[in-house]
Amino acid sequence: MKLLKNAALKALISGALFTVASTPLIASESPITPAQKETAQQLMVTALKSELGFSIVESLTTEIGPRLGGSEAEKRARDWGAKLGKELGFDKVAIEEFTMPFWDRGHLHIALTSPYNQELYGSALGGAAPSDKEINAPIVYFRDIHALTAIKDGSLEGKVAFVDGEPMVKSQTGAGYSPSNQKRRIGWQHAERGGASALVIRSVGSDSHRFPHTGMMSKNGDKWANIPVIAISNPDADHLRRLHNLNKPLAISLHSGSDWKGEVTSGNVVLDIIGSEKPEEIILIGGHLDSWDLGTGAVDDGAGVAITTAAAKLIANLPKRPKRTIRVVMFGAEEVGLLGAFAYAKKHEANLHNHVLATESDFGARNIWRLVSNVNPEATKLVDEIAKIIAPLGIVRGGSDVKGGGPDIIPLDNKGVPTIRLSQEGTDYFDLHHTPDDTLDKINPDELAQNVAAYAATIYLFADTNVDLKAKR
Amino acid sequence: MKLLKNAALKALISGALFTVASTPLIASESPITPAQKETAQQLMVTALKSELGFSIVESLTTEIGPRLGGSEAEKRARDWGAKLGKELGFDKVAIEEFTMPFWDRGHLHIALTSPYNQELYGSALGGAAPSDKEINAPIVYFRDIHALTAIKDGSLEGKVAFVDGEPMVKSQTGAGYSPSNQKRRIGWQHAERGGASALVIRSVGSDSHRFPHTGMMSKNGDKWANIPVIAISNPDADHLRRLHNLNKPLAISLHSGSDWKGEVTSGNVVLDIIGSEKPEEIILIGGHLDSWDLGTGAVDDGAGVAITTAAAKLIANLPKRPKRTIRVVMFGAEEVGLLGAFAYAKKHEANLHNHVLATESDFGARNIWRLVSNVNPEATKLVDEIAKIIAPLGIVRGGSDVKGGGPDIIPLDNKGVPTIRLSQEGTDYFDLHHTPDDTLDKINPDELAQNVAAYAATIYLFADTNVDLKAKR
Repeated sequence: MKLLKNAALKALISGALFTVASTPLIASESPITPAQKETAQQLMVTALKSELGFSIVESLTTEIGPRLGGSEAEKRARDWGAKLGKELGFDKVAIEEFTMPFWDRGHLHIALTSPYNQELYGSALGGAAPSDKEINAPIVYFRDIHALTAIKDGSLEGKVAFVDGEPMVKSQTGAGYSPSNQKRRIGWQHAERGGASALVIRSVGSDSHRFPHTGMMSKNGDKWANIPVIAISNPDADHLRRLHNLNKPLAISLHSGSDWKGEVTSGNVVLDIIGSEKPEEIILIGGHLDSWDLGTGAVDDGAGVAITTAAAKLIANLPKRPKRTIRVVMFGAEEVGLLGAFAYAKKHEANLHNHVLATESDFGARNIWRLVSNVNPEATKLVDEIAKIIAPLGIVRGGSDVKGGGPDIIPLDNKGVPTIRLSQEGTDYFDLHHTPDDTLDKINPDELAQNVAAYAATIYLFADTNVDLKAKR
Repeated sequence: MKLLKNAALKALISGALFTVASTPLIASESPITPAQKETAQQLMVTALKSELGFSIVESLTTEIGPRLGGSEAEKRARDWGAKLGKELGFDKVAIEEFTMPFWDRGHLHIALTSPYNQELYGSALGGAAPSDKEINAPIVYFRDIHALTAIKDGSLEGKVAFVDGEPMVKSQTGAGYSPSNQKRRIGWQHAERGGASALVIRSVGSDSHRFPHTGMMSKNGDKWANIPVIAISNPDADHLRRLHNLNKPLAISLHSGSDWKGEVTSGNVVLDIIGSEKPEEIILIGGHLDSWDLGTGAVDDGAGVAITTAAAKLIANLPKRPKRTIRVVMFGAEEVGLLGAFAYAKKHEANLHNHVLATESDFGARNIWRLVSNVNPEATKLVDEIAKIIAPLGIVRGGSDVKGGGPDIIPLDNKGVPTIRLSQEGTDYFDLHHTPDDTLDKINPDELAQNVAAYAATIYLFADTNVDLKAKR
């Protein structure tokens, strides 16, 4: 048992224990029985004292390392996940394979060549094409993505476009990501339309370190970029901006080996705790097993895999299985286009009506601060009651009509599967995500334990209730 | 004039102005006249409102970029420094050249090859030899430098030694640097003695980012290392430690192009404000113009160049020159062995008796919090009085027998030149120094202005006094 250094968590434990002792035997009108409430509270106490979650993410990041979707490392991660499921005593363990196109980063060199020679810190964006040979070209500066989208066709021939913009705005919810992300998603289409040799963008991240954030571009229909597309770090983008403001002539040299490498195999790992009364009804939780190739994928998303697996294991340790089945899915190939998520939804298409709730942990490992839901309105009272039970962890009840259970839940959500989300505090999430800095040292074991506690209590209560969660639609 | 966002500095300005108004006309027993005190206080107020310091470091880092000792970029930096000195109206501007051996980083590739393939984030250490070809070898793990020094001769043939250790301890004074630094300084001698193909060490830095800190090794007599020596980042070292603790067999692949490249020219830039009454007596201040090649040398040491140049310029703006000469030296080739410092001391050997005080700013750009000194004991009262005048900046009086005016002052100190030091708050200095993250965005303009204020007032008072500072020794 670990020593709890976090005084706040100690207080929560005392609070939870106290609440247990003072719970009235009959709670009128609640969809949750006193016994269920007591079990949920004991799960939280146990989780806060447990090192299981941290030991899982430590094992994944240490023993497997980076695990790009479709890579040999991701295969090792699936074997690791299946072995872990068996060791933890899950009732059913399966690897569900699928095929996918593989994009490889290759080697990148990028440097300023005018007004003087200076190495830049860049990362190719997912889906980018290689440079056939070294590109040496002047830079055309665009202050933001809107300026790039306004260019005329063919106006960037023989040039490299650089799209600046402001560093991503930090917030608890990560709301700054989507607007900041436009230059990464669609910038290449306009650079190509202009005839540019390559596109360079300010990294989509909120940090001030020299590591740019990688990430997938969007396809245009079924077409990927035909040019290299490179993100450079915020300090490098600041540097180019200052030189541009001094009217210095900017030029760049770049050589990128990133390319598509044909079809490969990926897969999802599926671990079940079979329900004792309604085994056909599935509560799906999980995270994604793949990571970007630059870091070891600790916060994105080893944490999510660890939190949900540990929570399910703590529930499995109870004297009796909850009524419904709890399914942990370790999704493959999330970063490169939610490929595991779509493969799962397709494979289980005929059984999605039995997926009564789905949620994913994929926003780091800071404390969970909010529970939102999108379930059958008649089941909202149940969610409200669950929120009260996990409130001692510092979690507030958010909206009851908030769609979205996480990236890998999108295909299920689209098919009408009800969702909840336990929102992590994400202010510094975009300092790390998709960079080499996403490593185990960034995870606070006490905060990870709070996540496991929230998931264990919440998922147990959803799994052991008779309340119908399916949205009427 | 910039807007002062920093409320503390606003308060200091009000305080200083108030003190000016209430200063008695005759301050009994003080070696500082009321007029001198008032001038010093006005210098602080002016400095806190001035953007000059920040504009200098912005110009150096933006227009020159990284500037390794002996490189073409360092030559451009000298020209920049001389041009700046002329534009700012220094009375005398000189470039004093010297020759030096040039070490070039070349290209490095380092990766784990067992228990699986994973890129590591490494930087060659200054003075390291190249690998003739790619080295593929098992890793022998040493928990710290002491474990490595205990090995038997020849016991590491065909192996790569890895020296772990704890991340550097953070402190205001940077006291953790020297002990942590031993593995960087002398580790190679023992790895070579053991017959290792290469040495890899945990980076000497207090951060948790994937950028290792470069830095110079120590010579053994007049001999440099014959093997590649590479620092890897703290998270990478953590990773190797965890794998070692799991008894995984560790092996590495590395290829380094770092090597000595022959004699080149470097130089110091010397800018004088000639004294009005004792022009032969020199108060020497400065920073170093060179930087490591990875970042743009903003905190190490563009800040020091900017702080001291701006302080001297503000003093030069006074209606009358102070009695003594103020000399700003922008030292060359500090990082690679204090080469500019020794060249300066040698060139000015016959005139060192006229160097009545020397100090360097080379510890970043956070607020100055302490004034220490090592001057003629009879002059200690003067330093005490100066400390009282700069106290409203948040600066305390430290010891009066603390040797050391900064790295480039060592050769002068050795020759008996009195020293002071204005100590910057250095808790996060070793998160950045010698890494690619040493860039302009890490400098807070308000804190830099506080530094300029402290230097301007302090140096003015030392330059305008008749007190004999020379140590009796």
